[in-house]
This record gives sequence, structure tokens and C-alpha cells, in this order.
Amino acid sequence: MSGRLSRQLAFLLEADKLKSIERRTPLADNSRLENSAEHSWHLTLAALTLAEYAPADTDVAHAIRLAIVHDLVEIDAGDTFAYDPAHHATKAARELAAADRIFGMLPDDQAPRFRAWWEEFEAQQTPSSRFANVLDRLQPLLLNVHCGGGSWLAHRVARSQVLRRMDPVQRWMPAAWPYVLEVIDRACREGMIVND
Amino acid sequence: MSGRLSRQLAFLLEADKLKSIERRTPLADNSRLENSAEHSWHLTLAALTLAEYAPADTDVAHAIRLAIVHDLVEIDAGDTFAYDPAHHATKAARELAAADRIFGMLPDDQAPRFRAWWEEFEAQQTPSSRFANVLDRLQPLLLNVHCGGGSWLAHRVARSQVLRRMDPVQRWMPAAWPYVLEVIDRACREGMIVND
Repeated sequence: MSGRLSRQLAFLLEADKLKSIERRTPLADNSRLENSAEHSWHLTLAALTLAEYAPADTDVAHAIRLAIVHDLVEIDAGDTFAYDPAHHATKAARELAAADRIFGMLPDDQAPRFRAWWEEFEAQQTPSSRFANVLDRLQPLLLNVHCGGGSWLAHRVARSQVLRRMDPVQRWMPAAWPYVLEVIDRACREGMIVND
Repeated sequence: MSGRLSRQLAFLLEADKLKSIERRTPLADNSRLENSAEHSWHLTLAALTLAEYAPADTDVAHAIRLAIVHDLVEIDAGDTFAYDPAHHATKAARELAAADRIFGMLPDDQAPRFRAWWEEFEAQQTPSSRFANVLDRLQPLLLNVHCGGGSWLAHRVARSQVLRRMDPVQRWMPAAWPYVLEVIDRACREGMIVND
């Protein structure tokens, strides 16, 4: 076997660990917490399904690439809960080191390309990365409200925090904003979100 | 919220159930069985990583679309174990009914498009679908050999069965065939596969 294929397969084997990274959001049936690998798949399916609402000039196939790799750094850095400011303060440093190691497993011509996709997702400066980020906000909202509160309820998250977290939806996928407001209102009424 | 967006979100919520469909292959660390959602994600990452070995005229972005939707029918039909001929005999009928129901949840213009992707994957007639199918054979091989035998060992699978199952790799991704043979030889030597 060539050294090149061997590095690629070692990377894919390492990536298997993303299936063991637990998020704070439960599955819609509330049976267990979601992991970051299946979450990433759900985003790719959402990209196909909701493509018509993407920002102008979005390349949906590219947004899907970003979604596929966007959480790989969590293999080393862990999942950083969206509503935990202390953990967020150290997120960048932890994830940069993780990106060095994990994408560095790939052959030298592929490593910078994969890493650039992750950086593009994080920077939220291109239409495709904005689309992928919007899906990354909408998907946990969908699960939280359907499982009865999920991470909102478990961590006593407030309405103002959820509104801030969902702001990219308002800016970059306004067609879905009425749905988001409807969900937040319902979640406040039903005690899933603290009405501050 | 528009009826259209509402159908799309209902489809995405239904798709969440794929995270609870258990496959026979364990994770590489042997901690538990893999589910079909995270498996689908792993195939999309493999498509990005191994794109250079794809059959001529493969559209990698399209192969990724096929990988994203290829197992959705399992929500109703369950995972059909590759080495279970009896269950395989009823696979087509079970999956056709599932495709009717699950893709039918989408708006009328989207349903046939998504369904056509699943049919294309199943038919293995296009370069992109052949690439996606090859990955669907290679990925469990990678996990089985690294977890110490996995579904091969648990179900006493024989060398001739694995060779038949891996045949698409030889035909459509010959660059990976020496690796497959090396893995099968090692797995036979170490008692993970029955050497028939």
C-alpha cells in the first residue's frame, strides 16, 4: 500500500473518534445526547433540504464540505457548549492545536485544503460558510424544542441568550426567522427557556 | 411559517431517527455499534479524502449527496446486514415502501429528486454512485479490522463472502485493492475472518 493511501486511511480512522464526542443537545426523541459525527451528517442533509433559503451566491456543495469537516477539531478540543462563556474563551486555542494535529495527518497537499475549509466555516465570511453556520444554529433548535427542552432546559438558558445565538438565522436566512421566533416563544411559554 | 418550510423541517426531524438505527459494525475502538447516521457522515468524509481514486467522470459533490441520503430508508426498513442472505431477499420491498413514505414527506418538487439520489446509489450504474458504493464497502472493512474483527467475527463471516462483498473495490477503485487483500489476509491469519 502506498504511503499516501496509508495516511489517508489513518486520517479516516482517527476521524471515527468524532462519533464519541458528545454534544449537549439530545436526539429529538430524548433517548440520549447527540454526538458530533451524526450532528455533522444532519447538517449536510439540512443543506440539501433547505438549499433554496441559502444566502445569495452560496455554493451548496461547498457548504456541505464545510459541514462535513466543521467539528473534526472536537476530537481533541471537545465540544464547546454554545451557552458556556468560560469554555468559549479557550475554544480558539484548543481548536487551533487540534487542527494542526488532525488535518496534519493528511498528505501534505490535502492537509491545508481541509484545514482551510474548517477555517472558512469558523470565519463566517463567505455565503457558503454562513449557510453552514445557520444550519448549525437551526438544527439544535429543532432538536431541543422537539425533545422537550434539551440543552436549554438542562442548563437554564435564557431567551436573550437563545436570541443572540440565533442571530445568524435572522441575518442570513430570514425566511426561517419567523419559525425561530415561534419556537422561542413556545419554549418560553412551556418553561423550556427562561423568559428573561 | 410556510407549509413548504414546515414540510422540510418535518422531514429533517424524521431523519433524526437514522441516529438510532444500529449497524452490525462497531466503532474502531469497539466501544459500541455504529449507527447509520454517523456511518453516512463517515462516507462523506471518505469521499472528500479519497476523491483522487474515484472512477473516471465521478462528480464527488454528487457522490456526497448520494452518501448523505443512501441509508434514510433504514428508518423504516432497518439496516440489512451485508452477510445475511435471508434478510437481503426482502430488502428491496422493505426499502421501496420506506422510500415512498420518507421522501414523500418532502415538498412535491423535492421528493422525486431526493428519491432519485437514493435510487441512483442503489443501482450502481453511474461513476458517482459506484464511488459512493465503494466507500460503503471500504469503511466497514476499516472499522472491522481495527476493532479486532467486529461484524466478521461476531457472525463468523468467511473469506469468500468478504471477497465477494469487496468486489466493487477491485472493479471501481483498483488503487485500494492491494490494501483490501492485505486486510483480508491479516484478518484470516488472526482469526477475525473464517479462512474457507
